[in-house]
Amino acid sequence: MKKIRLFTPGPTMVPEDVLLEMARPMEHHRTAAYREWVKEAHGLLQYIYQTKATVITLAGSGTAAAEAAIVGCCSKGHKALVVDNGKFAERWVKVCAAFGIEHTRLPIEWGRGAKAADIQKAMDADKSIDTVIVVHSETSTAALSDIQGIGKITRDRNAILIADGITAIGAIPAKMDEWGVDCYITGSQKAFMLPPGLAFVAVSDKAWQRIDSGKMPILYNDLKAYRKSLSDWDVPYTPAITLVRGLLWSLRSMKERGIENVWSETSLMAKATRAAVEAIGLKIYPKDPVDSVTAVLVPQGVDESALRKTMRSKHGFQIAGGQGDLTGKIIRFSHMGYVDMFDTIGVLAALEMTLAAQNYKFSMGAGVAAAQKVFAEAVK
Amino acid sequence: MKKIRLFTPGPTMVPEDVLLEMARPMEHHRTAAYREWVKEAHGLLQYIYQTKATVITLAGSGTAAAEAAIVGCCSKGHKALVVDNGKFAERWVKVCAAFGIEHTRLPIEWGRGAKAADIQKAMDADKSIDTVIVVHSETSTAALSDIQGIGKITRDRNAILIADGITAIGAIPAKMDEWGVDCYITGSQKAFMLPPGLAFVAVSDKAWQRIDSGKMPILYNDLKAYRKSLSDWDVPYTPAITLVRGLLWSLRSMKERGIENVWSETSLMAKATRAAVEAIGLKIYPKDPVDSVTAVLVPQGVDESALRKTMRSKHGFQIAGGQGDLTGKIIRFSHMGYVDMFDTIGVLAALEMTLAAQNYKFSMGAGVAAAQKVFAEAVK
Repeated sequence: MKKIRLFTPGPTMVPEDVLLEMARPMEHHRTAAYREWVKEAHGLLQYIYQTKATVITLAGSGTAAAEAAIVGCCSKGHKALVVDNGKFAERWVKVCAAFGIEHTRLPIEWGRGAKAADIQKAMDADKSIDTVIVVHSETSTAALSDIQGIGKITRDRNAILIADGITAIGAIPAKMDEWGVDCYITGSQKAFMLPPGLAFVAVSDKAWQRIDSGKMPILYNDLKAYRKSLSDWDVPYTPAITLVRGLLWSLRSMKERGIENVWSETSLMAKATRAAVEAIGLKIYPKDPVDSVTAVLVPQGVDESALRKTMRSKHGFQIAGGQGDLTGKIIRFSHMGYVDMFDTIGVLAALEMTLAAQNYKFSMGAGVAAAQKVFAEAVK
Repeated sequence: MKKIRLFTPGPTMVPEDVLLEMARPMEHHRTAAYREWVKEAHGLLQYIYQTKATVITLAGSGTAAAEAAIVGCCSKGHKALVVDNGKFAERWVKVCAAFGIEHTRLPIEWGRGAKAADIQKAMDADKSIDTVIVVHSETSTAALSDIQGIGKITRDRNAILIADGITAIGAIPAKMDEWGVDCYITGSQKAFMLPPGLAFVAVSDKAWQRIDSGKMPILYNDLKAYRKSLSDWDVPYTPAITLVRGLLWSLRSMKERGIENVWSETSLMAKATRAAVEAIGLKIYPKDPVDSVTAVLVPQGVDESALRKTMRSKHGFQIAGGQGDLTGKIIRFSHMGYVDMFDTIGVLAALEMTLAAQNYKFSMGAGVAAAQKVFAEAVK
């Protein structure tokens, strides 16, 4: 028997309960019953986001939601600072370019996150910047940016903070209202334990003012239409009904566990994974590691492609490789969504067995033991 | 026991096989296995569309795909003629307005479709028109436009024809290449027997030339990025994986039945429905009825809202009402996707029983009998 376990940082594993929930007979969306789902999901999304703001749900990928936020907030007359520290950050630079949005790119070394001081310096140097776009958890490098610190800067200067929380919301601490995030983006296929196909953006009152006075060309991704419909728990265009049904299940279960517990369990799996790989002589890639995804440098002499292939074909664990310049250089493990400590011990055991088969020298079991110690300490 | 049967023109019923197919464990999309799905689905989509053109699949609703086609083809220097004969046609006028696309609105009475002569006249009057946007099957009024005839005009004049085939593709005759359609749009939740969440646009070589030279602000809906990825059976952004899995099942089953058979079965259900409602003294609303959806005028003395409510609560049949100015005036029945002649006989029987309860005078069973005769003639 070979069980398949997804450790990719999206899509992640989907609970059997959610799969079956989505397999229930089709419901129409222009009904009182569907409006009840929308209403309940909205309240639960506010809880997950730790916000009183409106949370918009789109049918599309996270890119659609990010485009909606960026284009909605950045009409002519505004200027964006776009942190560029990875493959996803890069995409938001491309959105600005595609829509002719005035912007400055702030390059930061891959593997590092943006700090409050980086943003402060850039805003000091160019007083016309009134919008900051930053990726909270940069999935391609597994690096964490300091959204809380950056939020203080943008709030002080009355700027808009747009944060890509695609591998952050529901996985690591993310407190929209307390931190002063204005547009916070996420997608369904990460911490929400769902297949891809839904995207979310929570919008602060300050951001709505921007969006309301916006003059950018936009229709499908125009957040105003979604807000208008949401006032009646409705949607402007046909929603991805089955995914919304699954979403309700996921959000209810996250609320039941408690969002702080979800964060600390994610963090614990990241901590155990880091301890394990370091115990067998591997190195963590990012300088500022995030807890939702762990990126590990592939040691010399190990063939990354063969390693991932064996992990999947022989042991059933699908992990991710690197993207762009990092192709062949790192491997990545997700800690988001429907994954627990014993899944994590499993993937670490498989990693050890696969490394041993490639003649990488280490003491078999040392990594797993280090992870066990982290977990044992936490649950005692 | 009360079974629920959706007769709304989207979402439509989803086969149990598709629901369970989509409930299978999550697969990652950056794999050779997923690329095989994309490749097979693309070939099947070409068959359904009767085209050799590229068919792009988006995560989103039909509105996203229509926006992608319209914005992609209508940069500055081009002028669109937009037929406006219903609620969906109206939306494409709004897309043109939102993106500042130069356009002329061609209003046509609701319930009628656009004819070749309408387009010819408008293009004769304004030689700068080089793009025609028309809804093939206007879902809100159940009216059919003559895409074949319009295609002759646009082909002769080297104009681009963008057709909204959302309730046409896979339901009624639609021959992209033979008719000369340049962008043909559809969605998953109609004839494709799937939940909503996927949208499609097939793009002719002539349309790609436009799109390639386009200079409009677009990123998520930029078809060029999808075409580039598709050359390697890949996708630029995370796709709606479970829906694509269901899509494969649906398209295979449509191919097995044969697209001409799918068209004629849909047509037969429409014909039987029209015969039934006319046999009990009701009238068809559109002057140019389409075979994918039937719209019936609510007779005087019948409360439309109560009728639909009873159909659903007492008999389990969910039908649609009218939209916009047609609210309360018509009821609509879908003939698309996972529905057969006996489902259709069922909804007609429930309609008769509900009308009788509202004291509408007719001979109980006359409608059902008329439908049976149409079906019996076809299957003998």
